[in-house]
Amino acid sequence: MQTTIQSIGKCEIRSPLQRLGPHIQFKDDEDRVLFDHSFAETARAFAKGEQPVSFESAGPRERIFFDPSRVNAGIVTCGGLCPGLNDVIRGIVVELYYRYGVQTTYGFRYGYRGLIHRYGHAPMPLRPDKVANIHLSGGTILGTSRGPQSAAEMVDTLEEMKVNLLFVIGGDGTLRGAMELCGEIERRGRRISVVGIPKTIDNDIMFLDKTFGFETAFAEAVKSVECARIEAVGSPNGVGLVKLMGRDSGFIACFTALAGGAVNFVLIPEVPFQLEGARGLLEALRYRLEKHKNAVIVVSEGAGQDLLASQPSRGEGADASGNKRFGDIGLFLKQRIADFCASRKIDLNLKYIDPSYTIRSVPASAHDNVYCSHLAQLSVHAAMAGKTGMLVGCWHGAFVHLPLELITHGRRKVNPREDLWLAVLAATGQPANLC
Amino acid sequence: MQTTIQSIGKCEIRSPLQRLGPHIQFKDDEDRVLFDHSFAETARAFAKGEQPVSFESAGPRERIFFDPSRVNAGIVTCGGLCPGLNDVIRGIVVELYYRYGVQTTYGFRYGYRGLIHRYGHAPMPLRPDKVANIHLSGGTILGTSRGPQSAAEMVDTLEEMKVNLLFVIGGDGTLRGAMELCGEIERRGRRISVVGIPKTIDNDIMFLDKTFGFETAFAEAVKSVECARIEAVGSPNGVGLVKLMGRDSGFIACFTALAGGAVNFVLIPEVPFQLEGARGLLEALRYRLEKHKNAVIVVSEGAGQDLLASQPSRGEGADASGNKRFGDIGLFLKQRIADFCASRKIDLNLKYIDPSYTIRSVPASAHDNVYCSHLAQLSVHAAMAGKTGMLVGCWHGAFVHLPLELITHGRRKVNPREDLWLAVLAATGQPANLC
Amino acid sequence: MQTTIQSIGKCEIRSPLQRLGPHIQFKDDEDRVLFDHSFAETARAFAKGEQPVSFESAGPRERIFFDPSRVNAGIVTCGGLCPGLNDVIRGIVVELYYRYGVQTTYGFRYGYRGLIHRYGHAPMPLRPDKVANIHLSGGTILGTSRGPQSAAEMVDTLEEMKVNLLFVIGGDGTLRGAMELCGEIERRGRRISVVGIPKTIDNDIMFLDKTFGFETAFAEAVKSVECARIEAVGSPNGVGLVKLMGRDSGFIACFTALAGGAVNFVLIPEVPFQLEGARGLLEALRYRLEKHKNAVIVVSEGAGQDLLASQPSRGEGADASGNKRFGDIGLFLKQRIADFCASRKIDLNLKYIDPSYTIRSVPASAHDNVYCSHLAQLSVHAAMAGKTGMLVGCWHGAFVHLPLELITHGRRKVNPREDLWLAVLAATGQPANLC
Amino acid sequence: MQTTIQSIGKCEIRSPLQRLGPHIQFKDDEDRVLFDHSFAETARAFAKGEQPVSFESAGPRERIFFDPSRVNAGIVTCGGLCPGLNDVIRGIVVELYYRYGVQTTYGFRYGYRGLIHRYGHAPMPLRPDKVANIHLSGGTILGTSRGPQSAAEMVDTLEEMKVNLLFVIGGDGTLRGAMELCGEIERRGRRISVVGIPKTIDNDIMFLDKTFGFETAFAEAVKSVECARIEAVGSPNGVGLVKLMGRDSGFIACFTALAGGAVNFVLIPEVPFQLEGARGLLEALRYRLEKHKNAVIVVSEGAGQDLLASQPSRGEGADASGNKRFGDIGLFLKQRIADFCASRKIDLNLKYIDPSYTIRSVPASAHDNVYCSHLAQLSVHAAMAGKTGMLVGCWHGAFVHLPLELITHGRRKVNPREDLWLAVLAATGQPANLC
Repeated sequence: MQTTIQSIGKCEIRSPLQRLGPHIQFKDDEDRVLFDHSFAETARAFAKGEQPVSFESAGPRERIFFDPSRVNAGIVTCGGLCPGLNDVIRGIVVELYYRYGVQTTYGFRYGYRGLIHRYGHAPMPLRPDKVANIHLSGGTILGTSRGPQSAAEMVDTLEEMKVNLLFVIGGDGTLRGAMELCGEIERRGRRISVVGIPKTIDNDIMFLDKTFGFETAFAEAVKSVECARIEAVGSPNGVGLVKLMGRDSGFIACFTALAGGAVNFVLIPEVPFQLEGARGLLEALRYRLEKHKNAVIVVSEGAGQDLLASQPSRGEGADASGNKRFGDIGLFLKQRIADFCASRKIDLNLKYIDPSYTIRSVPASAHDNVYCSHLAQLSVHAAMAGKTGMLVGCWHGAFVHLPLELITHGRRKVNPREDLWLAVLAATGQPANLC
Repeated sequence: MQTTIQSIGKCEIRSPLQRLGPHIQFKDDEDRVLFDHSFAETARAFAKGEQPVSFESAGPRERIFFDPSRVNAGIVTCGGLCPGLNDVIRGIVVELYYRYGVQTTYGFRYGYRGLIHRYGHAPMPLRPDKVANIHLSGGTILGTSRGPQSAAEMVDTLEEMKVNLLFVIGGDGTLRGAMELCGEIERRGRRISVVGIPKTIDNDIMFLDKTFGFETAFAEAVKSVECARIEAVGSPNGVGLVKLMGRDSGFIACFTALAGGAVNFVLIPEVPFQLEGARGLLEALRYRLEKHKNAVIVVSEGAGQDLLASQPSRGEGADASGNKRFGDIGLFLKQRIADFCASRKIDLNLKYIDPSYTIRSVPASAHDNVYCSHLAQLSVHAAMAGKTGMLVGCWHGAFVHLPLELITHGRRKVNPREDLWLAVLAATGQPANLC
Repeated sequence: MQTTIQSIGKCEIRSPLQRLGPHIQFKDDEDRVLFDHSFAETARAFAKGEQPVSFESAGPRERIFFDPSRVNAGIVTCGGLCPGLNDVIRGIVVELYYRYGVQTTYGFRYGYRGLIHRYGHAPMPLRPDKVANIHLSGGTILGTSRGPQSAAEMVDTLEEMKVNLLFVIGGDGTLRGAMELCGEIERRGRRISVVGIPKTIDNDIMFLDKTFGFETAFAEAVKSVECARIEAVGSPNGVGLVKLMGRDSGFIACFTALAGGAVNFVLIPEVPFQLEGARGLLEALRYRLEKHKNAVIVVSEGAGQDLLASQPSRGEGADASGNKRFGDIGLFLKQRIADFCASRKIDLNLKYIDPSYTIRSVPASAHDNVYCSHLAQLSVHAAMAGKTGMLVGCWHGAFVHLPLELITHGRRKVNPREDLWLAVLAATGQPANLC
Repeated sequence: MQTTIQSIGKCEIRSPLQRLGPHIQFKDDEDRVLFDHSFAETARAFAKGEQPVSFESAGPRERIFFDPSRVNAGIVTCGGLCPGLNDVIRGIVVELYYRYGVQTTYGFRYGYRGLIHRYGHAPMPLRPDKVANIHLSGGTILGTSRGPQSAAEMVDTLEEMKVNLLFVIGGDGTLRGAMELCGEIERRGRRISVVGIPKTIDNDIMFLDKTFGFETAFAEAVKSVECARIEAVGSPNGVGLVKLMGRDSGFIACFTALAGGAVNFVLIPEVPFQLEGARGLLEALRYRLEKHKNAVIVVSEGAGQDLLASQPSRGEGADASGNKRFGDIGLFLKQRIADFCASRKIDLNLKYIDPSYTIRSVPASAHDNVYCSHLAQLSVHAAMAGKTGMLVGCWHGAFVHLPLELITHGRRKVNPREDLWLAVLAATGQPANLC
């Protein structure tokens, strides 16, 4: 596992942070945090003379690579909306300006398109007063778009505009695009630093405790589930069915169920389930309705895709970000439950709620406000120190530097054997096995 | 216009409210409020020797019809959820118990079904401590259902349970059901009072300033529209399309647009519009996108039904409440806008939001808390005074008694020539005429 | 009662609203709304040949006085913060610009000071894009201050800046200042229209159904009372004591108690009470604690001022707005309850909450958003039609024109004999008489 | 450092969780998490042949000590309110009942008093249906009180009631009380397990990433600070002064400032400051007012206590929990700023906000809902496995067991040299040194 961060050059410039006083604790590239902090595993490694895997600590450096007076920075936001985008933008602008004295930061508009001339989206100059209150609104003041653009054309733009720090906020595909930018920059021998800030409301990035916006998202999802509960208990055979985000992982569904405490079934991509059969979902639902007269079901959008495979409504192809199109498990379940109940003479009252756009577009919670500030500040420290092709992540509560390529090799998943899923089973009372 | 309430008998019992002291202002059946409070109209009527139309004032009566010690009250909630149902239930129970000393109030379960034995839904005894905090939750603790039941069977149940006051909370169909109950009770010569409390989130009851839950509903809708705005401004050619409640009238859509202030087009049932043509919606939308790059559209569910008439997705038949099924104008518009933009090579980013279940199931706002308390208290005063076949409404800021038959003869509509719609035009800047 | 507005001249200019189409319903100065809409009172008046009192209807006029191309408008906000100030500012700017084509609107800074040169507060030019989202924040973007300024100096400023429409948003003292401005303008024979928009979070303006911000305020107050309840029930002998706004009238206290439903004692300026004695508050509180172990008390800041008269902590003098300084009834009660409980060996747990600044500074609710929009639009219609020395109010649900002098002659009060206070007694269960 | 938990006996009973299936990952007492997860420190320890400090992992055990059919559990909540108390209660009850089949859980009322007969507070039987929705309310359904009680008397009660699992939720003093209980139980040779769940809204427990309720608390505090900002910008020389919780540590103040982003000065107990002098707070405030016309100050209640030492208003003695009484730094600052501005002829508009009761009594946020669930579930696992005199904490993102004595030896503080405080300096722009 490659965990060393590539710097684009030697750091010889005194950091302006030294002016804050002699007592500031700067970080060093030698400060590293263990990947595995279990005693046994660490002991085993050292006993065998191995070096356990570790990550470079994030934080301000005493000496930096870029001369602040010659820095032109850029920020771009890509992919779907996620709470906290404006917080990250604001944090970067403020930190560059007040801590490092960087005068020029451009906001590229509408994702990677903003780095391509022919789209005609002029960049937005960003200064602290312009971004002071943007965190009170959801979305991104820069706008966003999906899909890749030519790395060569984008680097052309950076060169023309003399941008030497680029902050790229986006998901998987976006970060792969950032890696291509790094490759192109390296080929041209330019001194441009590209720092990623991973954005995925699904919280499924490897080697990160959590992604920004996730806490806000499931807090918002809890409200929709409460509405579903109110609808469900309000009718005989009331069923509230809520589809939540989560293409490959069920974190939002799990946390929402744990927080709200009114969910009876959670269906996630990591845990297969059947509809039919004595131990299938439909029979479990029938039993619940018989006993309690109502039920609340939360389903991740990526759950049960195997069940849709033979459906006419199954997804096909991919969107502009390269994400595989999914079949709509929510509408599918709604129909199958309706059919099942009709066949069993159950006078079903199902209410289907699909709140995704009203979740992802809200302003960040106080928690995410703080988390985004930290990510932004530490990303600026890293960039000023000449780090590139990397990102700042929170691992076991410590902020660390991670190479971009490390985290784009897979996705974090809910482990059905571990605490989180067990807690969900305890909270819902659903059978451990719906097969 | 018949607006006097037919009492079921003479009021000879001293109201327990007299104990509150000599200073209480009781109301009298002679206290009446003018229907039309314009000077000119009133002067004209009196000049011609006519009696201008007026409504009986609501409020406590010095003498009442029912002996509180012999009252068994019942409450039933019918139709779809609406914010404030629990407030009304709570208000009735508390007023009956503390002000009149009525010991027994039943909550019938799941709408009119709860009054029919064979459904097997045992009534819930209601006392102040049981309902003390129910207004903090949305929905109805009694449950609800759609559709009529046999008046004869329901009156059988009332007689068996010796219920002599029945509070019926529901919409149009429900109130027509309440009138049938009154008819059956009269035929049997029973002394049972039936008081309606009109519930329609659409705010479309005639002769009422507004219905309970409406303020809460549009406040909640504003949040969805803000999400739509954030999505719209976040993408090139971003369009936020929000479908709101409003089968026959566009009050929610109008108030939501006025409150939020970020809506560009409001489409309501009362104002026809065209999609095609130089002055149609699609062209107006294209112009807006060209000039501002984004747009927010709010559409009432009952708008533009003429446009759907020839569609395969048009609605057919009716639901259990007898409401005509509508075609889905939201999905229809979404598709038509997508087709139009595709034909014009506009790279559309449309986000469609249909928040109805997350609007109608929230707890009532502080305003509606108070409004529901008033309606409940005044309904109890009316019922104890032997009023029946009537409801309490707020007309020009004064609470009055209205016969049930009066308000079931039509629906209140947005008048496109008057203030509300003009204010919407001013707030949105949309063309006065999309035809 | 003189209720006709004296116009500053004849209206001869075609309103730009005529362009909206032939179907617009313009209002006429002859359209009037009855002050008293009871049937009996109106009949009595007409029978005696009297003209019952009526108010001029608000609304757009077909012909206006000011030529929009020559209008320079100004807006000033005075006194304490109140939810909705930004909504009113925004509504005026947007209506002037889009409906009448007025290009120049100045925002005067920090109350009447902004109209006096020597304070050096340059006015802020206001245009629709600048005010588009200001209603999402509380407070006033113009700033505010207390206290009067010289009418002559202020009119000098208006003349120099060629401002011919001035919108003055403020309370009692502010509106008296507006009347002085009118007097000075009249003395100089200038054609400057001054329109007031009454602001008082206490909701105590005569002849108005309610003031803007009031709904938002009591909704916010309900949250504080819920906190007080949680604290009270969380301790043995827990008492939550909440002081709310309300110098001369107890509307906020009453509505808060009705909405939240967890209040046991409401103390307002209109209803005197005693602390001591068998029927005093302290004994009633002791009884409540004995029976229920906890209590929640809501007190208006202006309640019980007679009890403080002999206190060292009694208020003295007046603030810059000329409001009499009050003694702090909240701290006084806190101390007296503590002393009483100590003397009775009651182990009191009193939590005192004084939330006024966190109530008055929140953004307006959706309801107030709409209400402020209406007030703003109708004030603009009135001003453009040359009305002056007046304000727009909502009376019995209809918007009307009222002379400034009419409403500055007294304050609206809670009537202890009528519905509102009776509902409070019912909701709290407090003795009708704490004396 | 002793970090092994002393079990009260050998675990020989099969855990009912084994029924969930063969795939469940049980934890073992040998699973330990490093205290220090830096690579360098760990390497150094192992190189020297030392065992680096580590904590036992929390989680379900395969074999448990108590026979669920013989368990009577008890829960007690002590000290001031904190968001999440009801969540923890609910989580314990649900986990005991559904996962372990424990039928009897008592809720002791009003803190340790509930364990002393003579107070006469009968315990409340707790079952899942009774606690299903309690997390939607703030506070604690059990009530709370301050101060210690006799350990002997309390153990008498436990013995009489045959309670063998006691969950004690409270702060420092409460947990010291729990240790005394353990001592008494050990002296008597009883098999009663006492598990602590640390509650401090100040987030100042050693060896814990954070305490429950903290996230909710600062999110709520942000709202008060936003009100302070609105007030401050609304007046010339407007100053919003907000006092927040934080007796010994400034975490709430720091996180609130970082989240809200509108704070200019943060004053915390860990960072001394002066009022007077060229580099003191007053001069810095004067400069801010001159430049920006307004300022927002957040002060922890424990900040600047040295400045109050010679004041008449300084605190004296201690409250019932043994907490030293503090002088009121908020009122002190308010007065000193007023005096200073008067002396400088600055026309100050200071608004002072002290929101603590409206912060600590709100329901837990979704984040804290989940966090409290985890703490509750893991505390139950620990108790059933016979752990005692310990608590479950989250350390570097991993849940671990900690001996009670470990965490009562000091308090966690904000380190003025590290990230958090640096981020606050960056966000506020305040001088690093106000001395």
